[in-house]
Amino acid sequence: MKPDGGNLIGFGSSGPGGTVFKAFNPATGAQIEPGFASAEAADVERAVQLAAEAAPALARLPGRKRHEFLRRIADSLEAKSADLVARAMLETGLPEARLKGEVARTAGQLRLYGEAAERGDWLDARIETAQPQRQPLPKPDHRSMRRAIGPVVVFGSSNFPFAYSVAGGDTASAFAAGCPVIVKAHPAHPGTGELVGRLIGHAVRDCGLPEGTFSLLFDAGFAVGQALVRHPAVKALGFTGSLKGGRALADLAAARPEPIPVYAEMGSINPVFLLPGAIAERRAALVEGLYTSSLAGVGQFCTNPGLIVLLRTPEAEQFVQELAARLSATLEGMMLTPGIKNAFVAGTTARATQPGVRVIARGNASSVCSAAPVWFETDAKFFAGNPTLSEEIFGPSSLVVWCRDRGELLAVARSLEGSLTASLHAAAGEARELGELVEVLAAKAGRVILNGYPTGLEVSPAIVHAGPYPATSDGGRSTSVGTRALERWARLVCYQGFADELLPPELQNANPLGLRRLVNGEWASGAI
Amino acid sequence: MKPDGGNLIGFGSSGPGGTVFKAFNPATGAQIEPGFASAEAADVERAVQLAAEAAPALARLPGRKRHEFLRRIADSLEAKSADLVARAMLETGLPEARLKGEVARTAGQLRLYGEAAERGDWLDARIETAQPQRQPLPKPDHRSMRRAIGPVVVFGSSNFPFAYSVAGGDTASAFAAGCPVIVKAHPAHPGTGELVGRLIGHAVRDCGLPEGTFSLLFDAGFAVGQALVRHPAVKALGFTGSLKGGRALADLAAARPEPIPVYAEMGSINPVFLLPGAIAERRAALVEGLYTSSLAGVGQFCTNPGLIVLLRTPEAEQFVQELAARLSATLEGMMLTPGIKNAFVAGTTARATQPGVRVIARGNASSVCSAAPVWFETDAKFFAGNPTLSEEIFGPSSLVVWCRDRGELLAVARSLEGSLTASLHAAAGEARELGELVEVLAAKAGRVILNGYPTGLEVSPAIVHAGPYPATSDGGRSTSVGTRALERWARLVCYQGFADELLPPELQNANPLGLRRLVNGEWASGAI
Repeated sequence: MKPDGGNLIGFGSSGPGGTVFKAFNPATGAQIEPGFASAEAADVERAVQLAAEAAPALARLPGRKRHEFLRRIADSLEAKSADLVARAMLETGLPEARLKGEVARTAGQLRLYGEAAERGDWLDARIETAQPQRQPLPKPDHRSMRRAIGPVVVFGSSNFPFAYSVAGGDTASAFAAGCPVIVKAHPAHPGTGELVGRLIGHAVRDCGLPEGTFSLLFDAGFAVGQALVRHPAVKALGFTGSLKGGRALADLAAARPEPIPVYAEMGSINPVFLLPGAIAERRAALVEGLYTSSLAGVGQFCTNPGLIVLLRTPEAEQFVQELAARLSATLEGMMLTPGIKNAFVAGTTARATQPGVRVIARGNASSVCSAAPVWFETDAKFFAGNPTLSEEIFGPSSLVVWCRDRGELLAVARSLEGSLTASLHAAAGEARELGELVEVLAAKAGRVILNGYPTGLEVSPAIVHAGPYPATSDGGRSTSVGTRALERWARLVCYQGFADELLPPELQNANPLGLRRLVNGEWASGAI
Repeated sequence: MKPDGGNLIGFGSSGPGGTVFKAFNPATGAQIEPGFASAEAADVERAVQLAAEAAPALARLPGRKRHEFLRRIADSLEAKSADLVARAMLETGLPEARLKGEVARTAGQLRLYGEAAERGDWLDARIETAQPQRQPLPKPDHRSMRRAIGPVVVFGSSNFPFAYSVAGGDTASAFAAGCPVIVKAHPAHPGTGELVGRLIGHAVRDCGLPEGTFSLLFDAGFAVGQALVRHPAVKALGFTGSLKGGRALADLAAARPEPIPVYAEMGSINPVFLLPGAIAERRAALVEGLYTSSLAGVGQFCTNPGLIVLLRTPEAEQFVQELAARLSATLEGMMLTPGIKNAFVAGTTARATQPGVRVIARGNASSVCSAAPVWFETDAKFFAGNPTLSEEIFGPSSLVVWCRDRGELLAVARSLEGSLTASLHAAAGEARELGELVEVLAAKAGRVILNGYPTGLEVSPAIVHAGPYPATSDGGRSTSVGTRALERWARLVCYQGFADELLPPELQNANPLGLRRLVNGEWASGAI
């Protein structure tokens, strides 16, 4: 299985018309064959038209069939894991074990969302039966549920070539909800994208789904993505990446004649608060835990702990010294792209010149695409006076903020922007005093973690991968990970006074799909 | 109970600093005392600061307490109904019976949303318990639910001085979700707004809630509303009104450094499709039904049927003739404001000059603020070529679109923008052929109605008052009416690895609030 560089448009492929670009091997600095042809305007138009034609049939497709489709993609990802991982290693420099694990996670996600589609809880089906005799007015029959919103465009991430890319969480949840998907391939791993996209295409055919269910477009620049977001037949947008990129797309979507929903997961500093009792109780374990979490994926995880907030105590100073020593001794790691490496260098260089900021750990990075940890410290008063210190530096860099007392620590917490996660380490004895801090952190992050680390994300019905802006573009109302992710790709539709046979099966009296429904105020799984 | 014209800021009142304006009696053309002082920048700041201070306590308030608060507002609205209706009659010209009914509906809404808050289904509480022994990695404990988003600003409507205004659906659902609310009073009925606002203020005090739970600000122009939308501590926006106004606020919110969710219910033409079998079967009843629905509230309901689509048959022509005759004989009705009346005259005058458009009914309106029906007809080919014919004219005007065949009728349906409702009248025998049309209409509207009329909205768990843009600003993902309305004012928050006593009661093992929760994949109402 090798990529050939063509856009995947339904069951067809584009000619090699647009600007050609190649992937880059971060380990060798060399370009990788083949060239990928940027989609042209006609390709965009054809992909969107096919998606628009496919949308009604997909929206009607029973959850069981969507499950079958997602399972088939998952099976083929696993069957072709070796080929996929080999190409992804070339394009991303990520280690084999990590990529194998990511393929497995991606397959697991597809199956979980397929099960959610079949189970159908996410539809929130509700029925209020008619009361023709009600006074002063008869009560009509109302039946409502979520229905697929239509063609979805997905922009995958640089840092997860599988789990947040072509067949990643956005695509999987949009398919599960019954939407066609057009993926704009990430230019850092186009070959991996093409291989995964071809597997999806096979699954579309094998399951007898409409051709427009899936397309994959390449883009050397921004024109294809912008054209997709502007297209009137596109109805929603998923994005994982930088704040700058996500905000630009959100602004574009908001400025359309018909604005559309944008689910962008963007920047996050993921603050970690360490209380004195925790440090006194388990300093070595905390050094090890924070070190491991902050270097996971060479600091390129969206949940990377970028801000460490502590009270200045002798134990805390010792904790930071030990952590800094380990960080300084860390070997360089491979960054995903030269662009990310350069942004990391620029960000850490700028931060080192900020008033009140000191470098506390700096590893050595020699090769063109690698980075070693660069950590900083500052005092809460400098942090409060300098908004740039709250900005995420993507990669292995974090900022330690020293507070003189609990008031200052709370003030730091209150000053934070939205994050995907906020963590808190405390001894059992400190727990009772935590109420206010927990409340503040719960207002700032989609996931609040006690005595744990933000990296390592469980994909489950209860997980939330979200947060107030700038963590996400939708104020943390929805999640991009977990079964609730399906809800993003839907509208509410209510049927009034319908004959049973004209209703979607989900809302029919006999409940042929066996859904859990709210019937006249009570949840029930049977017929009515 | 009489209004005094002061802004209500928490428990206080502003000085009469800003531009003073007065309400207008549409029946007499006279201004009504007293003057209302536009809020000044300091008033906006104080109202928002109080709301921000109140937000954490309200978010923590148990659903039972929120229910108590909403019930108290409902009780006081009913107790003071006579005073409220008297003032609203002066300011809106709406008839007493209608306003009494609206107060009752508003009270009913408050109670329904209070019950929903206490029941807590809307929280979507989910628990995945830890599996410390899981391989290769332990599974952490995750517990998540919706939590109040923070201070909400509500812009009430002109056409429903109670149900969609100060204590209307947006305010009630935001309170139910645990958010403080700042209402920007509609300038067409400021006195009604003040009286209702004072009742809310009393309920805040009586229930021992924080002062910032509620404020009401007046504005002669747009500055106060804009300042509220721009304020960083405001976290969401509810709006009911025109497309122009809603879009302007949505654009403003999207352009903030931190964009916030906007739930604007805006323009809707509410298409009605009449199939030949239905007309043949029950022409007289359809004339009566459509006449009544289209003149409800002098055509000023958001669900007013503004587009009537038919196949040209002799029976259909007779149907339209009979309907037109009744419309032409209709007496003028009072419009809500001179501005709405003027826009109606401008809109109908412009439409009368469009190519291919003919006036089929025109009543006479003499007084300064009244209007009589003005209906138009055109052919599908003209409709297809002229986007202005799809625009809503607010008031008693509808456009009949004649189609030559079912293909043209489907093409009209496919060409429509989003609406709150779409209705379809068909004989039983026609039902089997309807599948495609129903599917198209379900993609265009939040509520599809078979053999019924769009006006008259049931407030229930199953209702959907929503629709794709321009019906709403959020693509129809949420509803502004019905218990699902609470979900708009919340974010998802997940707690990882928390000690039970540190969790919100909604997520504690003992389930002290008796909520229905998804525990390890199964819905359960007990303890775990």
